[in-house]
Amino acid sequence: MSGANSQALYLDDLRVGQRFVSPTHAIDSGQIEAFARQFDPQLFHLDAEAAKNTFFGGLAASGWHVAAITMKLLVSGGAPIAGGIVGAGGEISWPKPTRPGDVLQVTSEVIEITPSRSRPNRGIVVLKSETRSQNGEAVQVLTARLVVPRRPESGTP
Amino acid sequence: MSGANSQALYLDDLRVGQRFVSPTHAIDSGQIEAFARQFDPQLFHLDAEAAKNTFFGGLAASGWHVAAITMKLLVSGGAPIAGGIVGAGGEISWPKPTRPGDVLQVTSEVIEITPSRSRPNRGIVVLKSETRSQNGEAVQVLTARLVVPRRPESGTP
Repeated sequence: MSGANSQALYLDDLRVGQRFVSPTHAIDSGQIEAFARQFDPQLFHLDAEAAKNTFFGGLAASGWHVAAITMKLLVSGGAPIAGGIVGAGGEISWPKPTRPGDVLQVTSEVIEITPSRSRPNRGIVVLKSETRSQNGEAVQVLTARLVVPRRPESGTP
Repeated sequence: MSGANSQALYLDDLRVGQRFVSPTHAIDSGQIEAFARQFDPQLFHLDAEAAKNTFFGGLAASGWHVAAITMKLLVSGGAPIAGGIVGAGGEISWPKPTRPGDVLQVTSEVIEITPSRSRPNRGIVVLKSETRSQNGEAVQVLTARLVVPRRPESGTP
C-alpha cells in the first residue's frame, strides 16, 4: 500500500546502486493451477501429470504469475517508493521455470535515475529486480522503468 | 489449450508479417480490484474513490493484470502456436491506463523468426502483441520471444 509508508523514498532519496530486498512468497501447485485456469490455461501450467510430456517436463508457473507475485513482493516492502510503484514498462525474462514448492524473493537495484525535463515534479527510475528461488537461481529478471515523484518542497507558496 | 488445436502453427508455418487477432475481454472494476488485492495492492488499483487523487486520476488495472489478460487472449486463439505459448522473455510497456469497462483485444504480428542452431527441433519467434481498448488505443505493447517447435518430420526412422 503506498502513501502510508513513512519510509517511502522520493526521487531525491534514491541513488544508483541502492538495493532493496523483499519479503518471501512460497508458491504451490494450487496457486499455479488457479492462476493458469484464469489467465494461462496451458497444460504445463494446469496439470502436473500431463506437464511431464511438455517443454517444461513438469508443472511450471506461468511467467505472468511469477511477474504478479514479484509485483506483490515489491509492493510489500521490496521497493519502498513514494507514491507507489508505477511502471511505464520494461524488459522481462524468465531464465528458469518456477516450480511448486519454490520460495520466491526479489532483490532490486537502482540502475538509473533521470529527472523529467518536462515535469519537474517527477522522474524515471530504472530498477532491476531479480526474483530468485530458495536455491538462489533467478527465475525472473525484470528491468522496469518506474515513475517516481520528487519530494514535495515545503515552505514554498 | 495447446496441442489439441489442429490449426496450430509450427515454426515452419510462420512468416514475418503474419498477423493474428484475438477474441475480446471486457474488464470491470470487480476484476481490477480482485487482481489488485492478490498481486498489486495499491490504492489506484483498489479503490475508485481514493484513486482519484493519485497519479492515475481514477481506478486503473494493474499492468500485470493487463499482461495476464493479454496472455489469456493469446492462448484463446490470439497466437495459435504449436506446443503452446512459451515465452522466454520480452519487452513490455503500458502507454495508457486500462479502465473499468474497457474491452481488450490483442493484435499480434510476427516480427522475426530464428531457427535454433544448437537445437534443430525448435526456434525463436519474436511476436509483437498490441493490446487495444474498444476505442483503438494501445494499453499494452508486448514484444515477446517465443520458443516455437519445428514441424516433426514424418516417415523418418
